[in-house]
Amino acid sequence: MTVSPSPVAAETSYRSRYGSASFTPPAAWNAVLAQQLSHRSVRAFRPDPVPDDTLAALVAAAQSAPTSGNLQLWSVVAVQDDGRRARLAELAGEQGFIAEAPLFLVWLADLARARQITTELGSATAEGADFVEAALLAFVDVALAAQNASLAAESLGLGTVFVGAIRNRPLEVAAELQLPPNVFPVFGLTVGRPSGFDGTAVKPRLPQQVVLHHETYSAASQTADLHRYEETLNSFYAEVGLPAGWISRVAGRFGSVAGLRGREHLREALRTSGFQLR
Amino acid sequence: MTVSPSPVAAETSYRSRYGSASFTPPAAWNAVLAQQLSHRSVRAFRPDPVPDDTLAALVAAAQSAPTSGNLQLWSVVAVQDDGRRARLAELAGEQGFIAEAPLFLVWLADLARARQITTELGSATAEGADFVEAALLAFVDVALAAQNASLAAESLGLGTVFVGAIRNRPLEVAAELQLPPNVFPVFGLTVGRPSGFDGTAVKPRLPQQVVLHHETYSAASQTADLHRYEETLNSFYAEVGLPAGWISRVAGRFGSVAGLRGREHLREALRTSGFQLR
Repeated sequence: MTVSPSPVAAETSYRSRYGSASFTPPAAWNAVLAQQLSHRSVRAFRPDPVPDDTLAALVAAAQSAPTSGNLQLWSVVAVQDDGRRARLAELAGEQGFIAEAPLFLVWLADLARARQITTELGSATAEGADFVEAALLAFVDVALAAQNASLAAESLGLGTVFVGAIRNRPLEVAAELQLPPNVFPVFGLTVGRPSGFDGTAVKPRLPQQVVLHHETYSAASQTADLHRYEETLNSFYAEVGLPAGWISRVAGRFGSVAGLRGREHLREALRTSGFQLR
Repeated sequence: MTVSPSPVAAETSYRSRYGSASFTPPAAWNAVLAQQLSHRSVRAFRPDPVPDDTLAALVAAAQSAPTSGNLQLWSVVAVQDDGRRARLAELAGEQGFIAEAPLFLVWLADLARARQITTELGSATAEGADFVEAALLAFVDVALAAQNASLAAESLGLGTVFVGAIRNRPLEVAAELQLPPNVFPVFGLTVGRPSGFDGTAVKPRLPQQVVLHHETYSAASQTADLHRYEETLNSFYAEVGLPAGWISRVAGRFGSVAGLRGREHLREALRTSGFQLR
């Protein structure tokens, strides 16, 4: 653990997460919360390899996450080869840190095992695996697992960043990793020792009342809160030297098909990979 | 923290997770790994309420999880009302523990905020949000967040269990929670103090080499490993008094449409809710 739990750390951590003096920090605090609250994405890495023993601990943490019905509908490929990381970096929007970091974990929705088991026991088609529900089970399973791995890595002094851009060209990523049918790359996780020069910090999130609803959903105060958040985040962006604008970024992502950067073909890529999404 | 990190705890925890003396426990160990490795699902709860301050800490942990492009495409409804928990318990496969536990968190894929932001900035349709990619972003975001909340709850001495069965009748769940269009209930999380009488224990997972691949995907040794796991898990089931059979359970889930228990209609329910899955 790099963070020692103390009341001072608690107050600072909670306030950093919301970027606001108006948030009242809860009293609840311990080493797990300290680690979670201090999360930041790291995009600059030293080249030191991640030892096999550490990788085994990360995967054990991932496998310790809940999984629907104990189905365990995920796998992970650990990519350490320089050439392969360079090729994946290019496929994932030319993000150089993927090649720079020693370890790139590619997290897979894996229906291949379940289909094999099911067909061996006599169901010719494993028809249930053709449905949106099966894909959703796998997407949720793999995300729960990867979040445990990411937090475990951070607790061991490593930095991480999730990489959704492997979905820009998922079939080429699948070919690079020799994925069989019914296995799909959902996101990557870059892992390595932070170089200390990337300037990232704990990023403020939306005010808690925007995401937390009591008994029923209410968006009553949402518009004012979103604009307040825009201001909070702009202060943060100014501090770390990034251009302003959260609302405009969200709109840029969803305003047109171009914002999806190739991921408008995701349904077709999933179907090609065996995820029928019925 | 209820678990103090020590080498003895490390070895025991790693071995329990794999149910096997053949797994070599990694040296890596700390309070975060200890908490993660000790995860078990809890399905019997005391009625003591979860304090507001604790709920605020769980949501802060959830919001501290990574989120793609800082889009934060999720919300959560905290259900504490007795009647509402009872109705949700019935909608979710008559699982009584949902009514018994003091808190039921319903985790939502939320594209409503992003659509509102996007249309207010002039894109009439927020067309990007119609794609499978937008739904996937939200499913992954909400799972990363919920896993942080679940681990945080466990670190505070609470028990949790994820409930996918709210997807059996998702539109009725949405109506109960007054969800607007473009907001969909993905899973529930039951939270409360464990009663101590539910007999659950740390469940062994698949051998690590089944889910962890190096450089490329390989299912070469998989069949033998799956049968070895069946034996490991049957020993576990015998210890905790549950019926044997992992392979048959997987096959039962995917062998036919009936195994989906209503979730074969998930695609239609998502579309009705505004997730077009283009």
